[in-house]
Amino acid sequence: MSGPPTRTDTTVADAGEPALIDRVRARAGTPPDFVTLGIGDDAAVVEPARGELDVITTDVLVEGVHFRRDWTDARSIGAKAVAVNLSDLAAMGATPRLVLLSLVLPPALTLADFDALVDGVCVEAAGARAALVGGNIARSPGPLVVDVTAMGAVGRRRVLRRSGGRAGDELYMTGAIGAAAAGLAMLRAGVDRTALDPESADCLRRYEHPSARVRCGRVVAASRSASACIDLSDGLAEAARQLAAASGTGVVLDAESIPLAPGASRWLGTDPNGPGTDPGTVGTDPIQAALTGGEDYELLFAVPPHRRRAFLGAMRRCQPLPATRIGRLTADSGASLSVAGVLGPLGQGFRHFQA
Amino acid sequence: MSGPPTRTDTTVADAGEPALIDRVRARAGTPPDFVTLGIGDDAAVVEPARGELDVITTDVLVEGVHFRRDWTDARSIGAKAVAVNLSDLAAMGATPRLVLLSLVLPPALTLADFDALVDGVCVEAAGARAALVGGNIARSPGPLVVDVTAMGAVGRRRVLRRSGGRAGDELYMTGAIGAAAAGLAMLRAGVDRTALDPESADCLRRYEHPSARVRCGRVVAASRSASACIDLSDGLAEAARQLAAASGTGVVLDAESIPLAPGASRWLGTDPNGPGTDPGTVGTDPIQAALTGGEDYELLFAVPPHRRRAFLGAMRRCQPLPATRIGRLTADSGASLSVAGVLGPLGQGFRHFQA
Repeated sequence: MSGPPTRTDTTVADAGEPALIDRVRARAGTPPDFVTLGIGDDAAVVEPARGELDVITTDVLVEGVHFRRDWTDARSIGAKAVAVNLSDLAAMGATPRLVLLSLVLPPALTLADFDALVDGVCVEAAGARAALVGGNIARSPGPLVVDVTAMGAVGRRRVLRRSGGRAGDELYMTGAIGAAAAGLAMLRAGVDRTALDPESADCLRRYEHPSARVRCGRVVAASRSASACIDLSDGLAEAARQLAAASGTGVVLDAESIPLAPGASRWLGTDPNGPGTDPGTVGTDPIQAALTGGEDYELLFAVPPHRRRAFLGAMRRCQPLPATRIGRLTADSGASLSVAGVLGPLGQGFRHFQA
Repeated sequence: MSGPPTRTDTTVADAGEPALIDRVRARAGTPPDFVTLGIGDDAAVVEPARGELDVITTDVLVEGVHFRRDWTDARSIGAKAVAVNLSDLAAMGATPRLVLLSLVLPPALTLADFDALVDGVCVEAAGARAALVGGNIARSPGPLVVDVTAMGAVGRRRVLRRSGGRAGDELYMTGAIGAAAAGLAMLRAGVDRTALDPESADCLRRYEHPSARVRCGRVVAASRSASACIDLSDGLAEAARQLAAASGTGVVLDAESIPLAPGASRWLGTDPNGPGTDPGTVGTDPIQAALTGGEDYELLFAVPPHRRRAFLGAMRRCQPLPATRIGRLTADSGASLSVAGVLGPLGQGFRHFQA
């Protein structure tokens, strides 16, 4: 991550497992009061949030699949491993409380990169007021694997499910899509980071270091205005399909309404300002690429029309994060994209194993 | 695991991620009542155990480090990934409630092995009355990685810590050590499983498919007779060191008291019945090897002398699992092994990265 190791670079294998655990403990800092027992015992012990439900999720970043160490620094990898989990908690309306970190480390990983990775984990968790309370360190025969478990709490009447949507509900999404796909395209193209325009640089930053919409999920859950919610980790198209499938409805997205991240169209699909562009595809190809690109850690909400005012009121409390109406749930099954008033099939998002 | 794939073997890559998740859900079965939301949403939602603390841990099995697929069948790998986590819960005195399963899968893994692995996870969890409520599936560029998070509950006055021991406390361990080290030695030696004597076969079984001492941990915790507890995942020597270090004491183990699994001495250190054995090492070498071998998922308890009767009463409720007094915590720091009345240094157990 900072060039090939020099002779003075210590590796995790040099440091030894007990020293690595000590370094994690030092970085995790003093746990909050609800943590009865943190790092250093067989398991962590925590006081549940009074009167609330536990929400628990796990998600992993794997070298060569989710990241490349020659593209992305260790601190960002650690931060992103936490953020993708916080995004799952956000999609349930939960308040994050703690994370566990399971590291599978190549022995040649430098101690500097180990420290940076753990710093990224701790800072990202602390930003959401979650404590790193435990985990595991093992040796890898190959890739670096960063597996995080995150736990939060939510009031029992505030749980946001995927399955609560009904035909006629409006679909709203936070933020914009396409930034992550554009950032990945930049890395694949081997761009010079120092020469990027500000909008492209912002896309790259959002690919490498996404922010989970934790506050938004919590505020909307508290307003009880959304009937269903899912995050966009596998792309908007896949999220819309899954929310509709879980809710037993169909879905139509309006291509013209979907907000594309500024700068993303320069890196996705056909550049409308580029040479040889077919006017019939202007504005649709970047959206198609963004729809199926994945890793936009935004939230998709289903909102019954009679709760629209309450939902928009909740979203005003989340400013400057915008919410945009982009489609609706339908009585007939199926997933469609409306482009200039013509319905076509909605593409498929990211899947680890394409059947 | 059943020879090279034939042309009719479907792989996880052929099946596709949604189908894999459906297969996990089918195997997990109907969740218990405390699970508000199980597999299939962004996160699982569960009701905490009333009036108790949450206990949470994570541990991983990595192909080429913890197991070899040409040695051990997929079902046993899945079961062991759960058992090693249940052992951590047992060491806290906790009652298991749920597990999350994070799988990082080589695309060529057969669907039959995937199903067997998940079956192993579900059956092992169900044996401890824990529900599989969620997880994650990602692609691996190399090894199969099975990362499990387990959660349980424990009454706040019953938590078993590593740090509660005091000088003068007696040390007791459940079961015997050496079975796992012997089992691993058999696999390394390429033994014919069908030709093993019953005791050796039992050692191999305990290496490949350990049982966590869940009931014992819970019963001893309820008796409040132990001042400290740790599991023997990294070996008895390492466990004794870590319990003593966390408690701010030293430790002495008595070599002659330590129960060795029947059959283990045939595979560890010097066979006292073998040719050319130095009489000075009879009985000590297999114990030394077993002490540092790791993966004996037994429990080590510190018991104040005035609580001995209560502890032994609790252990009688755990029959046929034996508890054996094997040493004591000391006022001076340091970790020693007493052999025929002579104190020597206690060896070091398994560490992923030896400093």
